[in-house]
Amino acid sequence: MFRRSYKNRLPPVEETARDFRVVDGEPYLDEIFEHDRDISRGFARSELTEEEYKAAYSRVVNNLFSFGVHKFFVAVDRYDRYLGHVWVRITEDAVDFVPTAYVLDIETLVQGVGIGSALLERAEEWARLEGARKVSLRVELGNPFLTWYLKRGYRKRALILEKPLQAREKDSQGK
Amino acid sequence: MFRRSYKNRLPPVEETARDFRVVDGEPYLDEIFEHDRDISRGFARSELTEEEYKAAYSRVVNNLFSFGVHKFFVAVDRYDRYLGHVWVRITEDAVDFVPTAYVLDIETLVQGVGIGSALLERAEEWARLEGARKVSLRVELGNPFLTWYLKRGYRKRALILEKPLQAREKDSQGK
Repeated sequence: MFRRSYKNRLPPVEETARDFRVVDGEPYLDEIFEHDRDISRGFARSELTEEEYKAAYSRVVNNLFSFGVHKFFVAVDRYDRYLGHVWVRITEDAVDFVPTAYVLDIETLVQGVGIGSALLERAEEWARLEGARKVSLRVELGNPFLTWYLKRGYRKRALILEKPLQAREKDSQGK
Repeated sequence: MFRRSYKNRLPPVEETARDFRVVDGEPYLDEIFEHDRDISRGFARSELTEEEYKAAYSRVVNNLFSFGVHKFFVAVDRYDRYLGHVWVRITEDAVDFVPTAYVLDIETLVQGVGIGSALLERAEEWARLEGARKVSLRVELGNPFLTWYLKRGYRKRALILEKPLQAREKDSQGK
């Protein structure tokens, strides 16, 4: 209760976000994945229940961690409150076979003050020092952030195509 | 020597490919990866030596095998000779969080006789029966096969963006 009333006395993050700084994200992993899980659900084209989605989200994240070198950065305000994060993983990619930094996730609570740019730059710099030869990321078609990435030196490389499959029918032999 | 002269007496695959059939690919894995390793090198934008490429290729394949349900099909002629293959893996994808069949590779030795279509259809059918809700694959921008996939019901879903990173400079402190 004390914590909540203390938090309420702080100015809103919209006011403090302008003085953000970027720090290592590992101490903020719980908060990062809480945000990411909520936001990712908005992008998912599927009709999972809350429980199914949470279970699937856990499995997907665990699979992503099964190989590669991972790094997180967060942007925080002067009260160390979370303002956004970037999650990047270096693996050798299956196309060029060179160490590639894949931006798995980048999100900000407050837009227009440069948090996203600062997070992306920090991730790129980390990746460069780790020996990555390129940064790669996926943007959904129609996502307005495409222009944002193009302005920051990203170029279109490939398309992801998809085809829906009919749901499996009940086996008529009753197997 | 006997084997070679026997092989030489068979008609060339260009003649026999028309009567291909699609079978489980697992007994052909050595041949599949030999072909794939050669062909993938042609697509890679990197300046690796032969040895570096082979080592990177092995690591990438091992990483791909680290999770998911994998399946291979091959097309063979009436002498059971390899004519092409498809490699598909089902995982829950990181966007929709539903079981997704990712076509990791599809290649044919002979074109224009329907081998690619038959392999893709078999992979899709297998994926459907395994409970996958969609098929997903990556096509490089400028790859003429984009039209081939669009004709077979695939639709554009996302873009892969890339940005090169400057190579890491020699550490001036001599570390």
